Amino acid sequence: MSFIKYAPECHFSYQNLPYGVFSTAANDTRRIGVAIGDQILDLSVVKHLFTGPILAKNQHVFEKSLLNDFMDMGRSAWKEARQTLQKILSEAEGVLRDDANLRKSAFVNQSEATMHLPVRIGDYTDFYSSKNHAFNVGSMFRGPENALMPNWTHMPVGYHGRSSSVVVSGTPIRRPNGQTRPDDTKPPVFGPCKLMDIELEMAFICGSRSTHGDPIPISKTEDHIFGMVLMNDWSARDIQKWEYVPLGPFLGKNLGTTISPWIVSMEALEPFKLPNTLQDPTPLSYLQHNDSYNFNINLEVSLKCEELPNPATIIKSNFKYQYWTMKQQLAHHTVTGCNINSGDLMGSGTISGETEDSFGSMLELCWAGKKTTDLGNGVTRKFLKDGDEVNITGFCAGDGYVVGFGECTGKILPAHQM
Amino acid sequence: MSFIKYAPECHFSYQNLPYGVFSTAANDTRRIGVAIGDQILDLSVVKHLFTGPILAKNQHVFEKSLLNDFMDMGRSAWKEARQTLQKILSEAEGVLRDDANLRKSAFVNQSEATMHLPVRIGDYTDFYSSKNHAFNVGSMFRGPENALMPNWTHMPVGYHGRSSSVVVSGTPIRRPNGQTRPDDTKPPVFGPCKLMDIELEMAFICGSRSTHGDPIPISKTEDHIFGMVLMNDWSARDIQKWEYVPLGPFLGKNLGTTISPWIVSMEALEPFKLPNTLQDPTPLSYLQHNDSYNFNINLEVSLKCEELPNPATIIKSNFKYQYWTMKQQLAHHTVTGCNINSGDLMGSGTISGETEDSFGSMLELCWAGKKTTDLGNGVTRKFLKDGDEVNITGFCAGDGYVVGFGECTGKILPAHQM
Repeated sequence: MSFIKYAPECHFSYQNLPYGVFSTAANDTRRIGVAIGDQILDLSVVKHLFTGPILAKNQHVFEKSLLNDFMDMGRSAWKEARQTLQKILSEAEGVLRDDANLRKSAFVNQSEATMHLPVRIGDYTDFYSSKNHAFNVGSMFRGPENALMPNWTHMPVGYHGRSSSVVVSGTPIRRPNGQTRPDDTKPPVFGPCKLMDIELEMAFICGSRSTHGDPIPISKTEDHIFGMVLMNDWSARDIQKWEYVPLGPFLGKNLGTTISPWIVSMEALEPFKLPNTLQDPTPLSYLQHNDSYNFNINLEVSLKCEELPNPATIIKSNFKYQYWTMKQQLAHHTVTGCNINSGDLMGSGTISGETEDSFGSMLELCWAGKKTTDLGNGVTRKFLKDGDEVNITGFCAGDGYVVGFGECTGKILPAHQM
Repeated sequence: MSFIKYAPECHFSYQNLPYGVFSTAANDTRRIGVAIGDQILDLSVVKHLFTGPILAKNQHVFEKSLLNDFMDMGRSAWKEARQTLQKILSEAEGVLRDDANLRKSAFVNQSEATMHLPVRIGDYTDFYSSKNHAFNVGSMFRGPENALMPNWTHMPVGYHGRSSSVVVSGTPIRRPNGQTRPDDTKPPVFGPCKLMDIELEMAFICGSRSTHGDPIPISKTEDHIFGMVLMNDWSARDIQKWEYVPLGPFLGKNLGTTISPWIVSMEALEPFKLPNTLQDPTPLSYLQHNDSYNFNINLEVSLKCEELPNPATIIKSNFKYQYWTMKQQLAHHTVTGCNINSGDLMGSGTISGETEDSFGSMLELCWAGKKTTDLGNGVTRKFLKDGDEVNITGFCAGDGYVVGFGECTGKILPAHQM
């Protein structure tokens, strides 16, 4: 389909064309690129090829160091950009294929690129939309009888997260120090987090800002959902447990949140739609939509540690286990008139399936420390050790091609001595 | 002290010199100004007068439309800027006083200016640091026996807020629609918020970013606290009550947060320091500091409504009722390695004193609807009605001068019909 060749299992197929921001040793300017095969197409070099009715006069958005301005142009512009990209990258089109000089300056090997955060994240919100996860964690923190709060089946529960500490895949994560209370009969203590965890999540990134005071009706939400990334919402469970009442997660989460560098557009995910999860009770009308907006995205988490020659797979899950759709999340978030900006990050919440091997956090895998996870070769884990490296991958399996998200990795550094 | 004359009760004295961002009908470019008397000194016009060792090479920070770049230069630059401002505005100095042309272009009447958000707010965090408020609200939501959670006296409890909906004083606030559950035995309902409230807060604005992964020790926190503003953290109490478990406030707060336009620097507040509130138990060492960092700031809230000829004062409080200091808040917030950026907004939490007339929210004034607040002329309120306008003011009383914060106002618009 494209004159760029790649293996059938390559995440960055002609059907995918995700957006990212990269730089190289030869040129440290951050610039917008599109991944295809093992290459990156540098949009700052080919911006003159975007000659459609909307983008012809706005080619400057591809000269920026972040995607926000392009995303803020809205869904028609995103569709036009994708059409142009599929045209200029197709094997039938010569404009790039036959211009050796342009090809040389327009393509960069992914192996030679450094990836950066693709957007300026104005605000980061994290939802809590996997019923299995909410039930599992609720059971551990508050007992099974209070596991799912009464509001959970009526609204996509969420909270505001910290955007400053969102980092791109590959950035090391420092084990945090903090306050915990391991013994309820004694005062709290200070020291390195002992229950360092991951959360297997995905997130959508908003495009096209909305106006303060005006809700986005659920019928219009798709106009504001630009694309998706993988996300690891690192969690300090012992800090979280002591701090979280009554105002929710704070320091237990703001130590860092990792996202994958490539934003896969909703257009690329279109063929992988699934029926929505059946919701009982029926949500209030502002949360109702009839069209399918669930997605079949295979997710996998592996753990690489010094004791093992190869990474061990610890979780196999799927985005389809979400109870609330992204449309419902966005309609709910904005129903009060809360405005969104292009670049806002909206986390799914941990995605846990029904079986133990699909639980999306180590807290659930080890059931609050009661079990150990076997990594093979006699190596086990409950929570993360210093030096452990976690990698999340995700992909949609098409007919003879893959639409993949690449990787979302981070390695735990030892805590600062304080 | 200055050649600009003003009344002794004027908030914007020579001792104050707060920073803001403004535009005018004649020039709609947003630019940085300093308030003095009823004037604004336009720093984009007098930037060439900043000739000190740090700012001489960085005068461009005063040509920006936001204060972030200046604030990111750090505390030495802030001090140098203040020295320069006090020099060029003093009655003994002729550089501005005697240059009629320069004066004409450099000064703007405040009455002719439109004020804007002074900073790009990266992240907004709200603390919960008034013991009286936490106890009052905790009593209503969870009963007096669970009012103050066990963690409250050990750490400055806080949560991440929504930065996109922070607006500058004067911006109307739309009553939100949302989900509530007035009757626990029935399903939730959708409609306009019925318990629309205010929270009397102040906030500090961070300057000088920190590095992800590295805590700011409490001894260095002052290097990152640029100045303070008044804040009204509008709250939809009925939405909040139904949504807030277990992840904390979300839609009950993200409908809007109003700040005053002028940032009063910590240097200007220096003479109004008070001893810190006695803390029992003694906090963990990362939260300990011996120097005074509490402030004597008189706060007042008035309500203007259609039924009354004049605004009625409903709250008289003081910032000094804070239990946790801003230094402790910042040290706690960053102890996990959470990084801050210049422009980050850190709310105090509602500031309630010990007596009823000093309670910082209508929820407390009406004690969850059990009492009414008398506004005079037979007019009463429990929560806000459409058309009500709330105004927060704050000032420090010096010897013959005032260091004031101006006003923080907002009027409630009726909910959208949905």
